[in-house]
Amino acid sequence: METIDLKTSQATFNNQAFQCIGTGRLGLALHQEYQQELAFVQRQLQFKYIRGHGLFADDVGIYHEYQDDHGQTQVEYNFTYLDRIMDGYQRQGISPFLELGFMPKQLASGDQTTFYWQANVTPPKDPQRWVALVQATLRHLLDRYGQQVLSWPIEVWNEPNLTNFWQDTDMAKYFELFKLTIQAIKQIDPRFRVGGPAICGVDDERWLREFVTFCEREALPVDFFTRHFYTVNPVPVEGHYRYPSLRQLDESFHELEVSRRIIDQSSRYHGLPMYISEFSSSYSPDAPLHDTVKNAAYVAALLARLGATSQLYSYWTFGDVFEEKGIPFQEFHGGFGLVAFHNIPKPTFWTFKFFKQLVGDCLVNTDHCVITQDARGTLHGVAFNYGDTDRAMTLQLPETLTGQCYLLQQRLDDDHANPLKTWHVLGEPQSLDERQIELLRDAAVPETVTTTLSDQRTVELHVAPNAVTYFEIGQQAQAHDRGYDYRKI
Amino acid sequence: METIDLKTSQATFNNQAFQCIGTGRLGLALHQEYQQELAFVQRQLQFKYIRGHGLFADDVGIYHEYQDDHGQTQVEYNFTYLDRIMDGYQRQGISPFLELGFMPKQLASGDQTTFYWQANVTPPKDPQRWVALVQATLRHLLDRYGQQVLSWPIEVWNEPNLTNFWQDTDMAKYFELFKLTIQAIKQIDPRFRVGGPAICGVDDERWLREFVTFCEREALPVDFFTRHFYTVNPVPVEGHYRYPSLRQLDESFHELEVSRRIIDQSSRYHGLPMYISEFSSSYSPDAPLHDTVKNAAYVAALLARLGATSQLYSYWTFGDVFEEKGIPFQEFHGGFGLVAFHNIPKPTFWTFKFFKQLVGDCLVNTDHCVITQDARGTLHGVAFNYGDTDRAMTLQLPETLTGQCYLLQQRLDDDHANPLKTWHVLGEPQSLDERQIELLRDAAVPETVTTTLSDQRTVELHVAPNAVTYFEIGQQAQAHDRGYDYRKI
Amino acid sequence: METIDLKTSQATFNNQAFQCIGTGRLGLALHQEYQQELAFVQRQLQFKYIRGHGLFADDVGIYHEYQDDHGQTQVEYNFTYLDRIMDGYQRQGISPFLELGFMPKQLASGDQTTFYWQANVTPPKDPQRWVALVQATLRHLLDRYGQQVLSWPIEVWNEPNLTNFWQDTDMAKYFELFKLTIQAIKQIDPRFRVGGPAICGVDDERWLREFVTFCEREALPVDFFTRHFYTVNPVPVEGHYRYPSLRQLDESFHELEVSRRIIDQSSRYHGLPMYISEFSSSYSPDAPLHDTVKNAAYVAALLARLGATSQLYSYWTFGDVFEEKGIPFQEFHGGFGLVAFHNIPKPTFWTFKFFKQLVGDCLVNTDHCVITQDARGTLHGVAFNYGDTDRAMTLQLPETLTGQCYLLQQRLDDDHANPLKTWHVLGEPQSLDERQIELLRDAAVPETVTTTLSDQRTVELHVAPNAVTYFEIGQQAQAHDRGYDYRKI
Amino acid sequence: METIDLKTSQATFNNQAFQCIGTGRLGLALHQEYQQELAFVQRQLQFKYIRGHGLFADDVGIYHEYQDDHGQTQVEYNFTYLDRIMDGYQRQGISPFLELGFMPKQLASGDQTTFYWQANVTPPKDPQRWVALVQATLRHLLDRYGQQVLSWPIEVWNEPNLTNFWQDTDMAKYFELFKLTIQAIKQIDPRFRVGGPAICGVDDERWLREFVTFCEREALPVDFFTRHFYTVNPVPVEGHYRYPSLRQLDESFHELEVSRRIIDQSSRYHGLPMYISEFSSSYSPDAPLHDTVKNAAYVAALLARLGATSQLYSYWTFGDVFEEKGIPFQEFHGGFGLVAFHNIPKPTFWTFKFFKQLVGDCLVNTDHCVITQDARGTLHGVAFNYGDTDRAMTLQLPETLTGQCYLLQQRLDDDHANPLKTWHVLGEPQSLDERQIELLRDAAVPETVTTTLSDQRTVELHVAPNAVTYFEIGQQAQAHDRGYDYRKI
Repeated sequence: METIDLKTSQATFNNQAFQCIGTGRLGLALHQEYQQELAFVQRQLQFKYIRGHGLFADDVGIYHEYQDDHGQTQVEYNFTYLDRIMDGYQRQGISPFLELGFMPKQLASGDQTTFYWQANVTPPKDPQRWVALVQATLRHLLDRYGQQVLSWPIEVWNEPNLTNFWQDTDMAKYFELFKLTIQAIKQIDPRFRVGGPAICGVDDERWLREFVTFCEREALPVDFFTRHFYTVNPVPVEGHYRYPSLRQLDESFHELEVSRRIIDQSSRYHGLPMYISEFSSSYSPDAPLHDTVKNAAYVAALLARLGATSQLYSYWTFGDVFEEKGIPFQEFHGGFGLVAFHNIPKPTFWTFKFFKQLVGDCLVNTDHCVITQDARGTLHGVAFNYGDTDRAMTLQLPETLTGQCYLLQQRLDDDHANPLKTWHVLGEPQSLDERQIELLRDAAVPETVTTTLSDQRTVELHVAPNAVTYFEIGQQAQAHDRGYDYRKI
Repeated sequence: METIDLKTSQATFNNQAFQCIGTGRLGLALHQEYQQELAFVQRQLQFKYIRGHGLFADDVGIYHEYQDDHGQTQVEYNFTYLDRIMDGYQRQGISPFLELGFMPKQLASGDQTTFYWQANVTPPKDPQRWVALVQATLRHLLDRYGQQVLSWPIEVWNEPNLTNFWQDTDMAKYFELFKLTIQAIKQIDPRFRVGGPAICGVDDERWLREFVTFCEREALPVDFFTRHFYTVNPVPVEGHYRYPSLRQLDESFHELEVSRRIIDQSSRYHGLPMYISEFSSSYSPDAPLHDTVKNAAYVAALLARLGATSQLYSYWTFGDVFEEKGIPFQEFHGGFGLVAFHNIPKPTFWTFKFFKQLVGDCLVNTDHCVITQDARGTLHGVAFNYGDTDRAMTLQLPETLTGQCYLLQQRLDDDHANPLKTWHVLGEPQSLDERQIELLRDAAVPETVTTTLSDQRTVELHVAPNAVTYFEIGQQAQAHDRGYDYRKI
Repeated sequence: METIDLKTSQATFNNQAFQCIGTGRLGLALHQEYQQELAFVQRQLQFKYIRGHGLFADDVGIYHEYQDDHGQTQVEYNFTYLDRIMDGYQRQGISPFLELGFMPKQLASGDQTTFYWQANVTPPKDPQRWVALVQATLRHLLDRYGQQVLSWPIEVWNEPNLTNFWQDTDMAKYFELFKLTIQAIKQIDPRFRVGGPAICGVDDERWLREFVTFCEREALPVDFFTRHFYTVNPVPVEGHYRYPSLRQLDESFHELEVSRRIIDQSSRYHGLPMYISEFSSSYSPDAPLHDTVKNAAYVAALLARLGATSQLYSYWTFGDVFEEKGIPFQEFHGGFGLVAFHNIPKPTFWTFKFFKQLVGDCLVNTDHCVITQDARGTLHGVAFNYGDTDRAMTLQLPETLTGQCYLLQQRLDDDHANPLKTWHVLGEPQSLDERQIELLRDAAVPETVTTTLSDQRTVELHVAPNAVTYFEIGQQAQAHDRGYDYRKI
Repeated sequence: METIDLKTSQATFNNQAFQCIGTGRLGLALHQEYQQELAFVQRQLQFKYIRGHGLFADDVGIYHEYQDDHGQTQVEYNFTYLDRIMDGYQRQGISPFLELGFMPKQLASGDQTTFYWQANVTPPKDPQRWVALVQATLRHLLDRYGQQVLSWPIEVWNEPNLTNFWQDTDMAKYFELFKLTIQAIKQIDPRFRVGGPAICGVDDERWLREFVTFCEREALPVDFFTRHFYTVNPVPVEGHYRYPSLRQLDESFHELEVSRRIIDQSSRYHGLPMYISEFSSSYSPDAPLHDTVKNAAYVAALLARLGATSQLYSYWTFGDVFEEKGIPFQEFHGGFGLVAFHNIPKPTFWTFKFFKQLVGDCLVNTDHCVITQDARGTLHGVAFNYGDTDRAMTLQLPETLTGQCYLLQQRLDDDHANPLKTWHVLGEPQSLDERQIELLRDAAVPETVTTTLSDQRTVELHVAPNAVTYFEIGQQAQAHDRGYDYRKI
C-alpha cells in the first residue's frame, strides 16, 4: 500500500488533453451519425480543434479540371461540401486543425491510393496547381470565417515516412512540397500557423532531424512541429480484426523526448511547440483493444504524461464513423472512437471526462495517479491501473479538509462502464434495436460511490486491474433547508 | 433460499401500470420544467392517460362572469390555457383523465380552499352554471380534438370524503353534483365515459356503498368507479417534511378487495371497471420516503398486485413540479414524482421501467417477484425486497433455455440508482450546478451486471434490502462477424 | 374570362401525389443535410414511400466477398449502413420503395458504370449470389422492421431500356433477372409486393408490351407495373447546366395512357396498379428549370392528371442532396429537389403543399384548375398557369356559402415565393451566409391575400403567367370574444 | 417627392434598441410558451437584458416567514424558482435587468394589490427584512452566476408615481426605500449598478427633480436614472379592450428631453445614463393597436430617435405571455408582445428586425427614414410611414455604388406581414389549429422585392400608409459558376 501525503506534495501536470481531437476523413463530417457523436463529445469534453484526413479528397470535391472551348485545361473549385463541413464544426464549437492532403485524382501524378476510400498519395502532377488549390481554399475560408482562420493550425500532408501515405516515402519530394506550401500560405498572410512533418514513429528520428535541418537551411517560417504517437507492437489482421500488445510506456515516451530534443537543438526553432497530431494505443481501426477498459486505463497513463513534451496531443479519434478499413460490421469492432455508434461512450471516453475534471493546481502526477486541488480546497484525482493486480493507496488529506467531507468516486472497471462486455454477453448482436441501445447506454455509465468522511485524516483507494477511478474529496455543502432530516427517512 | 421452478410455473399478472399517471395541478402543465419531466417519462414509459386536479381552477382560468351593459351577469369561457395544456399533452402522446374540479372562485358558494394554490372546495353557487361550464368545456374539447375525447375517462370531483376537499364532506351534495354532472355529460354524447366517487381511504367502505346504491337508485349510466390508494400511517409535519411508516401490504390490499366486492354486488354495475385514480406509498408531497430505494421496492410490490382488482391505477405523480404544499426548497424534498427536477430519475422510476419490460406470459407473481416469458422464450423478471434482510432465490430454468444464455441484471439498491444518497453525501446542495446535475444523473442509473450461462439449469439471484432487480435470461444472439474474437482482446 | 359554376360542377380527381417521393442514392441518406431536408418535407407533406437508387451500391456496402483459409470465396453481408438509413426513414415516418440495384462491384460481370458516383450497371456475374443477396437483405429487413416490410413496394432495377443503366439494354437478360428476383422474393413470403420494369420513356411501348408478355408466359406473380415520366425535349449541357424546353402535356400523357392500356389488355394483369416510380419535368439534375416558378405551374398540371392512369407517382426528388452529375457548385443549380440546400423551399414545393390541401370531393379538374369542397362546405382550389399570358376566371359560388365568407389566396409567381430570382438579383452568391439564408427563406414564402366576401355570389381570380394560386373560400369563423372590435383599431 | 443625397449626407444615430427588452412578470418565465417566444426573439434580435416585474412576487416565492419552536418569527428564502428562471435566461443568452419588487405578502405593510396576479404594492412592514431579502437574493445570484451579476442593472421598484403601483404614491417613502436599498446593495459590492426612480410619465418632471435632489443630498452612488415612455392618450376599456389614439411624437419626446436636462443639471450626476426601462405606444395590454402595422411604423419612428437621449430603452414586451389584465381570450388581443402566441411575429417584430440590420455609419436619420452604410459600401435603410398618405423619396446613390447593384426591399404594410388582418378575415378564430397557425406564420412574413440596378444613380422608394420598408442597396456578388446562365432558364 502506497501512501501519498497531500499536505506537502506538489507536481507538474500540463493538461492539454482538450486542445485537439482526431476524426475520420472530413467527408464523413457530412454524416448525421458523425455530427451526433461529435455533439455528444463536444457537450462534455469541449475540444478546441479537430484534425482529420481528406480535406482535398474527391468526396469533399474541391478540385476540378475541365477543358474550355479552346481545348485548354481550366481549374475550378467547388466549396459546397467544404462549407457544409466547416459550418458543422462552427455549430459544434470546434475549429479545424487543417491537414493539407491527400491528392485530388485530377491533380495527382500517379495512381497509388491508400484506404478503403482510396486516398491518392502521390505528389501533385503540377506544383503550381497545388499551390493555387491551397491558396484558394485558405482564401475562401478566410473570407467565410474571418480572422479566426489565422489561428487554425495547418499541417502539410500526413505520415510521409510511410510508404502507403507518400509514394516511395520520398523525403526530398516531401520537403519540397512542404517548402512550396508553407511559402504559399505565408504569402497570403504571414500570421497563418503552419507546421509539419506529421510523421509517425517509423524511422522518425532521422526524418525529424532531416526535416528540421532542411527547414533551417531554407529558413522556413515553421510555427510548430508535428508527429504521431502509437504504442502497440505490430500484428497481422485475423478475420476482420487484430489484437496487438501494448508497449512499455517508458519506451514509448522516450521517442517523444528524442523528438523534443531534436527541435530544441535547432537554434532557429528551439522551444517551438511540438504537436502530437495523432495518438492512441493501436494505430489501426480494427483493434478491439480500443473498446476496452484496459485502453481507458492505459490512455489515462498517456494523458498524465503527454503534456510534459507536447503543447497539443490529439486522440485519434472522437467517434467510430470511420471507413479506412471499410464499413464496420457491428457495434463494437475495434474502432478508434471515444464513442461507439449510437452515442454509446466507450471506457476511454470517461478517461477524458475524468481528466477534464482535474482543475486547480497539481499535487501529484505519477504513473498511476494525478491529483489536483482547486481554489476551494477540493481535491480532484484520477487513479488508473492497466496492470494485472489490484492497486491500493492511502491519501493523507491536507489540513484544509476538515469537518464533514465527502468522498466521491466514479469507477470504470471490468464490471462498470464496460458496454463491450455487456454486448459480448448478450451474444454480440449485430443490429441493435432501441432497447439494446438503451441498455448499453445504461451499462456504459461509471459506478458512482459516495462516502461521508467525518474528520478523517486519511482515505484509502483501491483500483482494480484495468480500471480508472475519478475521485473527489471536498467539504460537504451546508444544507440550508431547516426541515430536512436524512436520518429520519 | 427459495426455489422457483420455471419449468412448470404459471401465474396471473394483469399489468396495467401504464394506463395512467398522476400530475400536479393542470395549470402547472404550462411550465417548461413540467413538460421536460413529462417528456423524459413518456419517452420511456408511455403512459396512456394523465390525471391531475385543477381543470377548473382559476390559474387555468376558464370561467368568467361579468356584468353586461344592462347590469345582468353574463358568463364567458376562456380556453386559451386549456388548449395550451391539452396541445402539450397531445404532443407528448398522452391524453387527459379529466377530473372535473375544483370550483372557480366566481362560481363557488363559499370561501373554503385547500392547498398552497388555494383550490376552492365548495359546491357551485348555481348548479346550472356548473352544468353549463362542464358542457361548454367538453364541447370545446370535442370540437378541437375530435372523437378521441369520447374515450377519455371523466371523473367528478376529488376525494369528497375528505373535509379539506369537499366542504363538510357532505355526501348528499356530492351525490347530487355527480348526478347532475353525469347527466349533463351524457346529454352531449352518451359515449362519454364518466365515473366517481374518487374517494380516498377514509370511511371509504361506507362512501362507496352509498354511492353505488345512489347510482343504482337513480339509474345513472356510470362507466367506472374510482378510488384512491395510499399505504402509510399518518404522521405530523416536522419542519418542512414528514416521515411516515408503511402499512402492511395485505391490510392495504384488503381495502381494494372490499371496494371491488361492493361494486360486484351491484346487479347494475357488476363487473364494471374499478379505477384507482391515485396511488402511492405516502399521500403527501413532503415525505422523503418517495425519493428512496425503499419506496421503489415497495411500489414494485404494489404493481405486482394492483391489477388483480383494478383496470387502471395511476401513480401519483410523474414529476416533482407540484405546489400543493408550496414551492419545494431543494432537489430532494419528498415530492411525489417518479422524476426529480432536472430529469433526475428517482428509484421508483426504475420500478416502472422494469415493469414495462415484463412482456409475455406470466410464470410467477409473488410478493417479491414477477416473472414472464416472451414468445422467444426469454425470461423477464422483477425481484424486489422492501424488507430488512437479504433475499435469495434459485430459479430452475425452463428446457427452452439451453446452450449459451445470458443473464442480465439491472439493480437498484442503497448504493446504485440512489441519487438521494449521493446528494445527501455531497451535503444536500440546494442550488445544483450543471456538474452536480450531471453527477446525479450518472448516480441515478442502475448497475448493469451480465453473466454468460453455459448450459446452466439453475440461476441464483440475491436481492439486498430495499432493492429492486430487473433480470432477463435469454439465448445469446448468434454473432455473425466472422472476424471477431472477444477472447483475444 | 372563363366562368365556372360551382353550384353544379363535379369532376374526377385521384390525388395520389403523396404516395411516394424520389431521393438521391440511398447512401446519401447518411448525410445530415439530407435528413434535414427530408424532415422539412415530411413535416409538411408526409409522403408514404421514398424511392432512390443505390440500395446495393458500394457506399451502402452490403455485399462482400473474401477468400477463406481454404482459398474458397465466401460472401458476407454488412447491414450497418442499411440499418442506419432505414432507421432514419422510420424516424421520419416514411418507408422505402425498394429499388433492387445497382450491382455491387464484387458481384458485377463487367466494369460499366454510370453517374459521378459510379453505379455499376452490369448483370450479376453469378445469378445465385444475386438471389442470395436479395434474399438476405429482405430477410434482414423483415427481421428488423417486422411485417410492415411486406407492404413496401419492391422494384427490380432501374431503366433497363437505357444503355447507361443496363449494359446493352439487353432485354432478355433483364427479363431473366426479373424472373429470378421475383421468384426469390416470393419464396421468402408470397405477400411481398414486387414489380417492374421501371422503364423510362424511350422505346417504352415495345419494352412494356414485351415485359407483360414475358411475365404472362412465365406466370410471374407481378403486383404492379412501373415506368417513368419526364416531359422535356432533350438538349445538351452548356457549362454545368442544360436548358430544355417543355413538351406538350397531351403528348406526354398519351404515353401513360398507352402504358395503362397495355397492362389492361393482359388477361392476367388487367387492372393491376401502374406506378410511375419517377416523374418530373426534366430528367437531369442540371436543369435550372427545376428551380423556377414555371416548373411549379407545370407540375401542378401534372398532379391534376397523373392519378387518372396511375395509383402512385413519385416526384423525383424531395431535396437537392444528389450527386449524379457531381457535387453542385452553388445554392441553385437545377437540382431535382422540392427543397434547395439549407431548407429553402423551391416554388414546386408549394405546388405539392397546395395539392395537399385539396381535401373533400372534387368539383372541378381542368388543365388550369382543381377545386374541391370539404364536408363543411369550404372550397379548396389550386389554379395554375404555365403559359405566357394572364388567366382569369369567375367562380359562381355554391348556395352553401352565404353570409360572411373569406377568400384566402396563397400565391407564387415571378415576384413571390421565387427565391431563385432573389438569389439571382443578389448576384448569385455561391457561399451563403446566415443572413442570406434567412433572406432567401423569407423570399420563398408565398404571398397571402385575404378578402372578406359579404354575400357575394361570384369571385374573380387572376393567375399570372408562371404562377400557382391556392385559394380557399369558406364561412368566417364566428368570433366569440365579446370585447374585440377590429373596426376600432 | 423628397430627394435625399446620399453622396454627402451624414447623421447621428445611437442605436440602442437591443440593449433591453421587457417581459411579463418573472414567474411567467417558468412557462414553456414564454421560453419558446423568447427563443424566437433571441435567435433573431439578441437582446442583452430583460426586465420584468415580480422578482419578489409570491409566485416566484423567495420570501418565507415561519414561527420557530420558541414562537419567534424566522425568515427563510426559497431560490428554487429564481434559479429556474435565471438558468432559463442564461440558456437564452440574456441577462436580467433586475427590478426589485413588488412586496411579498408576508413582508407587506398593507393589502393593496395591483393586476390580475395581485402584486402587493405596499412598503415593507420591516425595512430590515427588506434589506435582508435584497441582499440574500443578490448574494445568491452572485454565488450562482459569478461576477457577471455585477454588471446587471438593478432598479428599485416600479412606477412609484402611480397610486396603483405604490401606496399613496408616497414620494418620501419611496425615496427612503431607494436609499435603504442602494446602500444595502453597495455594501455587498460597490460595483453593483443601481438606479431609479422607474417613474412613468405622470407628474414625472417633479418626481425626477425631487429624486435627483434627494440623491444628491444623501450623496447616493446612483449609477443611472430610469423612467418610462408611453405615447398614447388615455381611454377607457370597452369590453375586454381599449382603442387609444397616438400622441404627437414631438410632444412625447419633449418629456425625455426634460428628463435628460434634469439629470444633466445635477453636478453630481451630470452625464449619467438615462435608461428608459419601459416604452411602447400604449401602456396597457388590451390595446389591439400593439398588433397593427401602424404600431410597427410608429415604433420605427421611436427607435430612430430614442438613442438621442437614452443609453437603453426597453420595448415592453417581447411576447404575449402576460397576465396583468388576466389571461388573453384569443390569439390577437392587444398584448404588448413583439411576438404573438405560437411564435407568430407581429409587425413591430419586423421593425426591430429591420433596425438590427442598420449596420455601419449613419447617413440619414429623419422622422421617416434611417440610412446607414457599412464598410463594404452597402446601404441599409429603414423607411417608415405612420401617416395616412403615401410617401415617396428619391435616393441619390453614392459614387461607390457603381456597376451592377441590387436593390432589396422587405416590406410590411396593410397587405403584408399583417397576420392580424389575415386572422380577422378568417373570422377571428379563437382556438387556432395547426393549419391556421402555419397560415398566419406565412402571412406574417414581409414581402421581399428585389431589383437589379444597372449603373443607376437614383432610386425611388414608395412607402404606403402604416408601412415599414427595409431596403438595402449593394454591389451584386460576383457569380463564380462558369456554367450558370439565368437568362436561358
